[in-house]
Amino acid sequence: MEWNEILVPAWRGEANTDIAEIMRLSETEGVISFAGGFPGADMFRLPEVSEVGARILAENGAAALQYGPTAGFSALREYLADRMRARFGVAISPAEVTITSGALQGLDLICRVLLEPGDVVISEAPSYVGALQTIIAYGARVEEIPTDEEGMQVDLLAERLAALSTSARRPKFIYTVPTFQNPSGATLSSARRRLLVDLAAAYGVPLVEDSAYAELRFAGSEVPTLKSLDKSGAVLFLGTFSKILSPGLRLGWVVAPETFTAKLIAVKQTSDQCSSSLSQLLALECGRRGIIERQVKASCALLKERAAAMSAGLKRHFPAGTHWVEPQGGFFTWVTLPDAPGLDTARLLKQAVAEEKVAYVAGRSFYAHGQGANQLRLSFSYPSPADIEEGTKRLGRFFQQALAAGA
Amino acid sequence: MEWNEILVPAWRGEANTDIAEIMRLSETEGVISFAGGFPGADMFRLPEVSEVGARILAENGAAALQYGPTAGFSALREYLADRMRARFGVAISPAEVTITSGALQGLDLICRVLLEPGDVVISEAPSYVGALQTIIAYGARVEEIPTDEEGMQVDLLAERLAALSTSARRPKFIYTVPTFQNPSGATLSSARRRLLVDLAAAYGVPLVEDSAYAELRFAGSEVPTLKSLDKSGAVLFLGTFSKILSPGLRLGWVVAPETFTAKLIAVKQTSDQCSSSLSQLLALECGRRGIIERQVKASCALLKERAAAMSAGLKRHFPAGTHWVEPQGGFFTWVTLPDAPGLDTARLLKQAVAEEKVAYVAGRSFYAHGQGANQLRLSFSYPSPADIEEGTKRLGRFFQQALAAGA
Repeated sequence: MEWNEILVPAWRGEANTDIAEIMRLSETEGVISFAGGFPGADMFRLPEVSEVGARILAENGAAALQYGPTAGFSALREYLADRMRARFGVAISPAEVTITSGALQGLDLICRVLLEPGDVVISEAPSYVGALQTIIAYGARVEEIPTDEEGMQVDLLAERLAALSTSARRPKFIYTVPTFQNPSGATLSSARRRLLVDLAAAYGVPLVEDSAYAELRFAGSEVPTLKSLDKSGAVLFLGTFSKILSPGLRLGWVVAPETFTAKLIAVKQTSDQCSSSLSQLLALECGRRGIIERQVKASCALLKERAAAMSAGLKRHFPAGTHWVEPQGGFFTWVTLPDAPGLDTARLLKQAVAEEKVAYVAGRSFYAHGQGANQLRLSFSYPSPADIEEGTKRLGRFFQQALAAGA
Repeated sequence: MEWNEILVPAWRGEANTDIAEIMRLSETEGVISFAGGFPGADMFRLPEVSEVGARILAENGAAALQYGPTAGFSALREYLADRMRARFGVAISPAEVTITSGALQGLDLICRVLLEPGDVVISEAPSYVGALQTIIAYGARVEEIPTDEEGMQVDLLAERLAALSTSARRPKFIYTVPTFQNPSGATLSSARRRLLVDLAAAYGVPLVEDSAYAELRFAGSEVPTLKSLDKSGAVLFLGTFSKILSPGLRLGWVVAPETFTAKLIAVKQTSDQCSSSLSQLLALECGRRGIIERQVKASCALLKERAAAMSAGLKRHFPAGTHWVEPQGGFFTWVTLPDAPGLDTARLLKQAVAEEKVAYVAGRSFYAHGQGANQLRLSFSYPSPADIEEGTKRLGRFFQQALAAGA
């Protein structure tokens, strides 16, 4: 069988294995990993979740093991509609909620119904590597809008939308992680949020709001979700249980207008039929019992400590001229090393793991067009403060040497 | 937002909601459902599975709740490679196994990397509605090969492949459910299996073997899997835990050559990142403890009783001239009513549910091109023998009346 001959063009080349590599590095014995965006093992509320799981299997096992509706269990959709109201001030009906197998599936389903090869999608630069890979897999062209400490530079987006509107290439959607962005950690300011939502409505371009980290604030003050500002129905909201309960359950949700939700359900039907019934019942009961709210609160406290340890380690050990933004929440610190010819964090990654036993994600993974050679993402969500100190010490020394050697 | 304007062409029309309708009908209070392909609730080994689930969460909870590798846990891939050898005589390495979120995701990933709009896929007629919907969602054209009591008429496939090989339209793959087919219940004979595998190899066309029901034999003697006959590496094997353990876990697997497995893993990465860790650990431990083998054995006994009840009910209550094949395993009896002008089981379905409180799936759902007006699929896996007797009585009377009224 000549497999490569019969593949569709998009899949003929070497696959991007950045995320697989992240997963593998994170599991290597003895390596301090700043790579994966994993919740710390100490964030899971294991005794409570275990008790709920045992009870669901004992009392409602036949439902937990059986097929469920493609859109998700009604009770979970109702719970999420209520929670969206209570937590984010978003008034929606359960019929606007689709349960997905993680937030990434939510984005994938949106891509399935909206994208054809050559279509334009707008994203922040840098942006979440998983989302970029999913969008690019549909043959779409990613147009990047630069970010600063207040997130996406929405004035530049306005210019780009104006320019694109007179061409044949109306963007299919805008993808954004507005709060504690992956990878930059930046949070879009309130003023920019209003402008962004207005622009999406004015140009009739859907705005995909990935809220993965939005609840994990440990400093600063709350900002409204894009969805709560949305009057036109342009915002498609991606939610996930991964960072507030468990990524291993593979559960997320999309909030979208009902007409579009019908399409998402239809395409989900052809993708994986329905999400895990056991996972859904477990997440619902953890929500009802307040386990999720307790986990969010405790996670924020742990993340605050770890972010502080990361910041202290960077100050103490990294080369002079290194720059980063102090995150106010989420999992990530985005580091810009002094710009030096030949410095390439992607090329240095294997060596860092082999020689220093520290893993990170290279800056280039977060751009669609290969920038970021002097940047890297450090995730502080998983390691202990002591490991963060040790890891930044090793990595700081490593980059000092690389810069001294002319990288 | 004008959502319909920005959808890709394939998703602009009304979505096919056959399966959503099946799910809904199956849940309607007081309805005897022969619709969904659901394992009977009494097939689940609840006390045993509950104990395993409670133990995993208590002892290995941090892994069950965390992200896992995109390809699936190594231990589960090893277990499945061993099981493929023991159960099906298929010698493979764990590196050829991809864990998927149900077998349908396996097919969806195969479609993602192989299909472009206008491509040709060959399937049996009738064939599994879920697979047809997934294939058609990629804009592929389904070419149907008729079936008889021995499954796909492979001599007709040979003619079709010969004809297509001289055109530009080489088929991208052949999709088949060779054992206890969904919906016909028919099993492909051993002689035809050999010929089918040889044809796939000779024409270089991948052969997707959906083995969903293959282990659920309650009569007759075993036939080899296509994969076990495959010397050329043309067979892509779809396995699932849905019928041997639990559909609610959403777990299946694909066995494919390593080069193609790499593509499946890459596209899975962009689809849902990884399958549920909790589900994987649960399935693995249920396998190791022999729960799966005990469930298969007990399910076969229950299915045998229910198939007999279905057959007896059909004989007793259905119109003279009704035809069906006695299944030797699986979940389904495929019924052909006397051909009468105006008879349309799809059109009659709502009335059957409303007036007679019995649900089935109309024949038309199982064809790509609208045949099957006088056919229907009856699933005997879920209802009790008493409900099967009552349901066939109501449905038999209903079709008697429809035929008498000139349908």
